[in-house]
Amino acid sequence: MADLRVIGGDLLPPAAERRHLLAVSDLTADDVARLLATAGSFALSQERENKKLPTLRGRLVLNVFYESSTRTCSSFELAAKRLSADTMTFKSAGSSVDKGESLKDTASTLSAYDPDVIVLRHPEVGAAQYVAGVTDARVVNAGDGKHQHPTQALLDLFTMREAFGRLEGLNVAIVGDVVHSRVARSLVQALALVGAHAMLVGPPALLPEGLAPVSHDLSAIADADVVYVLRMQQERMLAGANFVPTLREYTARWGITPERLRTGQRVMHPGPMNRGVEIDARVADSEAALVTDQVRSGLVVRMAVLYDLLTTGPVAVESAVGVA
Amino acid sequence: MADLRVIGGDLLPPAAERRHLLAVSDLTADDVARLLATAGSFALSQERENKKLPTLRGRLVLNVFYESSTRTCSSFELAAKRLSADTMTFKSAGSSVDKGESLKDTASTLSAYDPDVIVLRHPEVGAAQYVAGVTDARVVNAGDGKHQHPTQALLDLFTMREAFGRLEGLNVAIVGDVVHSRVARSLVQALALVGAHAMLVGPPALLPEGLAPVSHDLSAIADADVVYVLRMQQERMLAGANFVPTLREYTARWGITPERLRTGQRVMHPGPMNRGVEIDARVADSEAALVTDQVRSGLVVRMAVLYDLLTTGPVAVESAVGVA
Amino acid sequence: MADLRVIGGDLLPPAAERRHLLAVSDLTADDVARLLATAGSFALSQERENKKLPTLRGRLVLNVFYESSTRTCSSFELAAKRLSADTMTFKSAGSSVDKGESLKDTASTLSAYDPDVIVLRHPEVGAAQYVAGVTDARVVNAGDGKHQHPTQALLDLFTMREAFGRLEGLNVAIVGDVVHSRVARSLVQALALVGAHAMLVGPPALLPEGLAPVSHDLSAIADADVVYVLRMQQERMLAGANFVPTLREYTARWGITPERLRTGQRVMHPGPMNRGVEIDARVADSEAALVTDQVRSGLVVRMAVLYDLLTTGPVAVESAVGVA
Repeated sequence: MADLRVIGGDLLPPAAERRHLLAVSDLTADDVARLLATAGSFALSQERENKKLPTLRGRLVLNVFYESSTRTCSSFELAAKRLSADTMTFKSAGSSVDKGESLKDTASTLSAYDPDVIVLRHPEVGAAQYVAGVTDARVVNAGDGKHQHPTQALLDLFTMREAFGRLEGLNVAIVGDVVHSRVARSLVQALALVGAHAMLVGPPALLPEGLAPVSHDLSAIADADVVYVLRMQQERMLAGANFVPTLREYTARWGITPERLRTGQRVMHPGPMNRGVEIDARVADSEAALVTDQVRSGLVVRMAVLYDLLTTGPVAVESAVGVA
Repeated sequence: MADLRVIGGDLLPPAAERRHLLAVSDLTADDVARLLATAGSFALSQERENKKLPTLRGRLVLNVFYESSTRTCSSFELAAKRLSADTMTFKSAGSSVDKGESLKDTASTLSAYDPDVIVLRHPEVGAAQYVAGVTDARVVNAGDGKHQHPTQALLDLFTMREAFGRLEGLNVAIVGDVVHSRVARSLVQALALVGAHAMLVGPPALLPEGLAPVSHDLSAIADADVVYVLRMQQERMLAGANFVPTLREYTARWGITPERLRTGQRVMHPGPMNRGVEIDARVADSEAALVTDQVRSGLVVRMAVLYDLLTTGPVAVESAVGVA
Repeated sequence: MADLRVIGGDLLPPAAERRHLLAVSDLTADDVARLLATAGSFALSQERENKKLPTLRGRLVLNVFYESSTRTCSSFELAAKRLSADTMTFKSAGSSVDKGESLKDTASTLSAYDPDVIVLRHPEVGAAQYVAGVTDARVVNAGDGKHQHPTQALLDLFTMREAFGRLEGLNVAIVGDVVHSRVARSLVQALALVGAHAMLVGPPALLPEGLAPVSHDLSAIADADVVYVLRMQQERMLAGANFVPTLREYTARWGITPERLRTGQRVMHPGPMNRGVEIDARVADSEAALVTDQVRSGLVVRMAVLYDLLTTGPVAVESAVGVA
């Protein structure tokens, strides 16, 4: 295939239809395979001294974050920059104004800038879906309430595949506060798409019903290839709801320590970690931990998502990897 | 005219004199015509897939915002990026320090970076004028207290011309809190420059004297081609000043509802809208509303202003529109 | 030497070893000479209309600021942009969380983005050293507690050399709150490296022992070529510590006024100035003041530092100065 030095994005294949990434349920197994393959190509490009690709030059990616985020926001911003797109970031502390109306007018304003992609994080379930309906941009859901966070699920799959060489048949134990977690909800769906198995482990009050097999006994993690530790999202717990008696008790019963892991198990965490609460510092710093790999995967997976949304689905991946 | 692929901005016509855009009174009718024509050319360039132009590559635009702003700040930032200029944004919550001194030292610091353009929003009348006097940069006033906001007036003219095909003879009713509004002050002057007519409509306490014909009866908007609704700027009203008895009463008497408009009238608002206060949601979402058009106009008008300040006035507009 | 139009940074000389700039003690006299010479070349490039160089295209500079900063942060950001590097800025208000742990995980996250340079400001002594140990990036200390701020010292040297044509033998009186000042600590070391002489002047409680000759009499500044005025860092003083009886008394005894200077003396200040406290406004605005020069020097010195860390030490400086 010719070395396609895309200038100004004009040589990109035309996007036949506008697509979004709002939830893992938007994706087929083929979509996941294609996105992970594209991310793999981008990962190779990131080993070069000049990590920048000209692929999306002249395109505009708007990051709109109604909830605080360092990791996800910077990951999308850098993904866009590595593809030579322009970016602008809007951050808004969740104010007391009627958010429905505010989002409507904000979406109209952003739409008037004709962005190619809007990346949205918002505390309300369905916010990304709503924005997709009122703009001409492609929309990526970077987290809507406790609903979905599909790029997190994709980066988790990418990380697991890098670590184990496969996804099919992997056993993943998701430990902790599943009920408040959009990460867990997206990951369970994504694991099913690729033929891996999810189990939820934690105290009854923190596990939803009907999402995946559950266990209220931490020893159930013994069969897992991956122990996926969720952040204790104290900010999502309603005051007085008493999901957990005390943090100290939670840590004693559910905290992931070296003693509770077996050899060969890998540990993941979406970050930021509460060291000493849901994860022991010795685990966080061990070879078993894939936390930094997840961050690295996040960058290339988000590059792949941005690239994919602006092209017509299955493309020769090599054509995306030129030299900026 | 040859397709002038400007590299590094070195082929820009030399700027014979340093100019600023501090107030609408800085502009002649010819200036306005030239700026709107340039903005029109840029609007065409924004319909391409690659919206970026190489025109101001290597130039530096500093956005300095002493008041919070999402819309204006992002509009200038994107305008600069679309012209391939570098941008940096400084935001400062209005602190309790002596702002005069602070502005002096901030201006000296910014000046030391040798920016090509400084875009300044500041709560004090005359701040942009002051900075223009102590730096070598071109200065654009993006709002100084309740004094002026000239690019808002230009984008409003551009929007009206797109909607009506002309400016001369248009009747514009400006409704609401005129006395605190730099937008209104700039717009009235701009309308006069192009041969359009302004009328101010609202309760006596909110209308200044001597700016334009006034009416204290909302039915006066019947003759208007454009009903320009101002934001109720509660943050500018002194506590206890009692400009308006209550917001509910204001809305009842002066709020713009579908019932109060006649067919063919267009509605404008500088944003952000207080839906349900000065403007009914049904109006905001109707075909009559030009609010999103105003945002889109803001981008290309600010591109035109940046471009114009860095060139020698009247230029062949086509030369600005190459391919990045 | 050929006009080396570096594309993508691939033609940069390979960096044989990873280096950092953590403290002035990392530098030899040769290093300082080389950095100042490189900064001088960059200063020439800043007089052109297109101030941007392609030198670091495709590289990533992360600015990580755990303390508020306008001047230093923007200076590094612009330095990176002028060299065509990509930048991302992380700002974090110093929160109440255990900063040691937080810094560890933040450093791991940042490291996963494979930045070429991390610029770090942090309230804890040794933070930059710590991050250098856990990432693969080059690290520049942009201030760690009251320990070091080496690029400030380099820009001060550059400014003095521009003003006097030499550094060797210059007498520099550093006046004020030395004990809390990383600027002073770095500057004293840097002056020694280039054969200039430092003296500390101020009330006993504000001068550390063993750093440089001290005087508790302001008349000691009479012999100085440069009067270097430190900011009264009230935010660093512990409540009730009583380093200074009152600000008014400090100003009366130690404030730098025109009357206390002799002809030919130059005045420097790292900014932001407390006009009317440690420095009289008439001095700040006089020809004697080099404060704006310091800001301008900061930009080119930081360009030089970024450039230097990404190349193998002594290089032909002209090769860095192409056309973006």
